Amino acid sequence: MNKPIRVIQCGLGVIGCNAARLVLEKKSLQLVGAVDPAPHVVGRDLGDVLDLGHKLGIRVADKLSTALQKKRADAVLHCTGSSFAGVYDQLAEIVRNGLHCVTSCEEALMPYYRAPKLAAQLNRLCARHGVSVLGTGVNPGFVMDTLATLTTAVCQRVHSINVLRVVDAATRREALQRKVGAGLEITEFRRLARELKIRHVGLTESLVFIAEALGWNLDEVDESIAPVLAEKTVQTKFLTVRKGQAAGVRQVATGWRRGKKALELELQMYVGARNPRDEIAVEGVPPMRVVVEGGTAGDEATPAILVNCLPRLIEATPGLQTMATIGLARAIL
Amino acid sequence: MNKPIRVIQCGLGVIGCNAARLVLEKKSLQLVGAVDPAPHVVGRDLGDVLDLGHKLGIRVADKLSTALQKKRADAVLHCTGSSFAGVYDQLAEIVRNGLHCVTSCEEALMPYYRAPKLAAQLNRLCARHGVSVLGTGVNPGFVMDTLATLTTAVCQRVHSINVLRVVDAATRREALQRKVGAGLEITEFRRLARELKIRHVGLTESLVFIAEALGWNLDEVDESIAPVLAEKTVQTKFLTVRKGQAAGVRQVATGWRRGKKALELELQMYVGARNPRDEIAVEGVPPMRVVVEGGTAGDEATPAILVNCLPRLIEATPGLQTMATIGLARAIL
Repeated sequence: MNKPIRVIQCGLGVIGCNAARLVLEKKSLQLVGAVDPAPHVVGRDLGDVLDLGHKLGIRVADKLSTALQKKRADAVLHCTGSSFAGVYDQLAEIVRNGLHCVTSCEEALMPYYRAPKLAAQLNRLCARHGVSVLGTGVNPGFVMDTLATLTTAVCQRVHSINVLRVVDAATRREALQRKVGAGLEITEFRRLARELKIRHVGLTESLVFIAEALGWNLDEVDESIAPVLAEKTVQTKFLTVRKGQAAGVRQVATGWRRGKKALELELQMYVGARNPRDEIAVEGVPPMRVVVEGGTAGDEATPAILVNCLPRLIEATPGLQTMATIGLARAIL
Repeated sequence: MNKPIRVIQCGLGVIGCNAARLVLEKKSLQLVGAVDPAPHVVGRDLGDVLDLGHKLGIRVADKLSTALQKKRADAVLHCTGSSFAGVYDQLAEIVRNGLHCVTSCEEALMPYYRAPKLAAQLNRLCARHGVSVLGTGVNPGFVMDTLATLTTAVCQRVHSINVLRVVDAATRREALQRKVGAGLEITEFRRLARELKIRHVGLTESLVFIAEALGWNLDEVDESIAPVLAEKTVQTKFLTVRKGQAAGVRQVATGWRRGKKALELELQMYVGARNPRDEIAVEGVPPMRVVVEGGTAGDEATPAILVNCLPRLIEATPGLQTMATIGLARAIL
């Protein structure tokens, strides 16, 4: 057994806390620090923040440099924001400290798409410091991109790919139910959607990831968002959706290639969704139809894939990595 | 666009010929040679051997060195045999000539399992010559190992994995129908199975691949084989199976870990199989259930994945690679 990878958890929201708990379970990993400037956690023992019922002897630091004064580390699990440009300075600081980084930042799945200059800059910084950065998660990161891409490995020719993910938001955490607009009046939903306050971040990143992996130049990419209307009143643990209100969101990203619709990714996340599932349909030779029955459980899967990718990232050649460039992602001990 | 990868096809059986045809379709690849010592092909133009209806200006060579006198190459697609020890000398010659190699040799999926010394030797040879070797295919290579392994990437914990592949052999080539014993009397089936003349090669390799990828030490591995009896007379394009005869094979590989059945891979290949499909069931947190509806069409998928992995192999660090160590396999242009 190699020495455990020493990990600092940056960001102690729901996903960050679950990732930190999972690191504690893994023999191949060792949790050595935690960073979050939020007043309700900073300075507290991480065991208390994670509700473990015992101390960990790890005090939550306000910033990375403070955590690094106490302990040496190999890698950071970074769970703070969705925008690559928004978290760029944090990622750059991690890299400058010689630490690898797996981030849940949705745009980091395919950072070259929205922030090509910053991505190239981070790639150079990684190479200089001999470390790697990877953006992943359940979606983006697995269901609608990595799994769909691997499915094409057995295809001689690929004409088009459709991916459908249907999530019953009632089974997810409160923040996600709010994020998809469950319980809002339709006018309110549309206003918030226009302000980009209701949306799943990363659908276009998933689409661009597939296109890039297949070597496809897309003529055009677009993304649309619409409310799914509740057909009857639905009650979740956290909120009530009345008939006619928004139950959640239907979001579609489309990619055209050579004048045809070559990629379509559709995400439905709403409370009361029937037959939740992930479906990948590849039109090609041979055609492939892959279904994750019941769908991939996002709240458990996201911390899992973040943690599981750490050893793969450390094995990789230094640089800005993607789920297509690291070794095969899989569960770790 | 990078320069095309120059490919030599070694082995012109059914899979080799289909792989060669596919190389001709790919912009990123260039077919520069073919090797097969069989009297009915050696010396002929490859276009004729492949039934293309036109010449290719590539004469089928009796051995690799002859082909290399005419043309320089980057990689070999190797489709000659199932036993790693049996094809070792061919692979070593390819590597010594400074060529990368993707092979359909089933045991090469996980060569360290049956031939650890030869595998280590080939790995050193690869490193010395700056090239890589990879064993892949649809099964072993994709359905029951690579796809199953990737599925665990979203799991916090994995307790056990069951994979079931059901193939209607009537949809497959004649050689495969014969290989699974379709149309044999049961006593004859059992005799040939004992002599290892009826069997799918690579099921245990798939199982060991998963275990190795997950870092699992297995206490015990075994594999069993039994005939599937025809419940009624079935006629295929190539043969007739009478009621009570063997319709094909049911093969099961099992891996025990910590006293429990942790891995079970079951392959059913028989004429008239109902509901052909590939099913991956991961017991864990979260559980995952992935189904390839209709199953992955082997005769089309095997040449596809061999060809598709060529660029991934060339990108890899020199050495003996596996489907877990190369970048994400996917369709290429």
